[in-house]
Amino acid sequence: MIQVGARSMYNDALLAAVGRAGRPIMLKRAMAASIEELLAAADFIAANGNSDVILCERGIRTYGRITRNTCDLAGVAALNLLTRLPVLVDPSHSTGQRVLVPPVSRAAVAVGADGLLVEMHPEPRRALSDGLQSLTFDEFHEMMRSLEPYIDLRRQERVATAT
Amino acid sequence: MIQVGARSMYNDALLAAVGRAGRPIMLKRAMAASIEELLAAADFIAANGNSDVILCERGIRTYGRITRNTCDLAGVAALNLLTRLPVLVDPSHSTGQRVLVPPVSRAAVAVGADGLLVEMHPEPRRALSDGLQSLTFDEFHEMMRSLEPYIDLRRQERVATAT
Amino acid sequence: MIQVGARSMYNDALLAAVGRAGRPIMLKRAMAASIEELLAAADFIAANGNSDVILCERGIRTYGRITRNTCDLAGVAALNLLTRLPVLVDPSHSTGQRVLVPPVSRAAVAVGADGLLVEMHPEPRRALSDGLQSLTFDEFHEMMRSLEPYIDLRRQERVATAT
Amino acid sequence: MIQVGARSMYNDALLAAVGRAGRPIMLKRAMAASIEELLAAADFIAANGNSDVILCERGIRTYGRITRNTCDLAGVAALNLLTRLPVLVDPSHSTGQRVLVPPVSRAAVAVGADGLLVEMHPEPRRALSDGLQSLTFDEFHEMMRSLEPYIDLRRQERVATAT
Repeated sequence: MIQVGARSMYNDALLAAVGRAGRPIMLKRAMAASIEELLAAADFIAANGNSDVILCERGIRTYGRITRNTCDLAGVAALNLLTRLPVLVDPSHSTGQRVLVPPVSRAAVAVGADGLLVEMHPEPRRALSDGLQSLTFDEFHEMMRSLEPYIDLRRQERVATAT
Repeated sequence: MIQVGARSMYNDALLAAVGRAGRPIMLKRAMAASIEELLAAADFIAANGNSDVILCERGIRTYGRITRNTCDLAGVAALNLLTRLPVLVDPSHSTGQRVLVPPVSRAAVAVGADGLLVEMHPEPRRALSDGLQSLTFDEFHEMMRSLEPYIDLRRQERVATAT
Repeated sequence: MIQVGARSMYNDALLAAVGRAGRPIMLKRAMAASIEELLAAADFIAANGNSDVILCERGIRTYGRITRNTCDLAGVAALNLLTRLPVLVDPSHSTGQRVLVPPVSRAAVAVGADGLLVEMHPEPRRALSDGLQSLTFDEFHEMMRSLEPYIDLRRQERVATAT
Repeated sequence: MIQVGARSMYNDALLAAVGRAGRPIMLKRAMAASIEELLAAADFIAANGNSDVILCERGIRTYGRITRNTCDLAGVAALNLLTRLPVLVDPSHSTGQRVLVPPVSRAAVAVGADGLLVEMHPEPRRALSDGLQSLTFDEFHEMMRSLEPYIDLRRQERVATAT
């Protein structure tokens, strides 16, 4: 899979190129992009030949200072109504703080996200970047165990909706 | 309970008065208030004699237009780390759209909210205000049924953490 | 004159009271208030009996960190088209930095502001609050000298427009 | 001159390429970029061989709806303190409204901008894009006449500062 980062969401030349790449694309929402602009970028990739696009909410830039960005989980719910494309949530960049990654991941699953993009590092203190928001492997496994019942719930709801 | 609305969060005279009111206070976060300012307002009520304060996240004002406000659910998780006060989420004012209330309510429960503040109306089309974000009674009951397993999950986790 | 601070712009009880006060009112824009909301607050004061209201732009809260707030000078120009009420600019709270007060004051005059609200302190380092944004008396006088030709220009333009 | 648009400010490959282009570069601030990020992008161009960079403030995205964006004129004053690079203001994209272009242009000159980037069209109603913010040629000439005394004032101040 090719990731188009938040800073590249408006890069039409890149979007056209990944439209021809023949591989799934993960498209991250730009820092102050509207939901409509995110969908337009996905459409542009599709118009260039690739409709295998996964969207990713990674937090928008607001006045808040406790979290690195503001995770727009209602925007994820809106995307689920507006498009059939899968939607991921990146709780690491959204919050910028390790301790907030598990609760925001639970909320992302509950709001209807199709997946998570979580930063890990064997030794976060030694990370060259983003160490403050990286989980250790143990923390990641513990989080995944706590997420399982939420994932199960969503799966049951989807089965019930589909039948 | 007395509700201090978002537009009154900075009203020190009112905060002092409700601090002397002898009843529980629900304090809504102002439209562009930081988490620190919300906590300071709660402290000010407590300093005036009333520590029975419930905080409420009701969405912050950002550039987004699909939702009425941006619901800061990571802020709720942060509040849970910073204070022992209960925290509600208002998915109605946060989103401004009826169809987004159930998924955002699920996410609020999952992120650790202690309760929800949901607008209902027997006939939303006839509501004098906020009709677009109001659930009918049937929609509310259906939402509550779908929330129950999430509430149960959180309850189990809290029991597990406490023991 | 009575000043209604930014944190009180939504305080309807206060707005009604100053509407009955029989004195000019300076109404500061709240931190995330729209231009429409500022005008609605002024209308509410007028509806309570006092149309002698002066509006004040004091910066809105955005993601920026170099300035304390973001001074919305285009909003001042918009206000001049939407209302006959005088409009002040507060370059001190807008920027939070002494060195930015003179250039933002010049811009405020040029954009069409009817006045400035500038913080001064005989010894800013000893100020109990807002010292970083306060001018000394000497700095204030120097700034006023540099503003004079801009004020003259605006006066000439107004005379030309009126004739 | 080559213009790097707001949506390309974070495009490192493009910044590196224009760094090798041997022509002056106009670099527009991205929609939610900080002043620091704008300067970092200019530094990156310089590090690739081209220090002939002109910065451009074109409005940041906020919650405001009367103007298309919020023109950060205090940010222009801050840039003048932080860098020797020239700084332009784009009053057209900042405001999105023709009638606001002249007052914001005056303010830009007064705050210390080194130039303006103004949209014009012989028949704005027929413009394929951005017609609402485009001046006619007549409106442009009228605006330039009204700007002249402000430009003269700034020139005198610069001469006085330099001597």
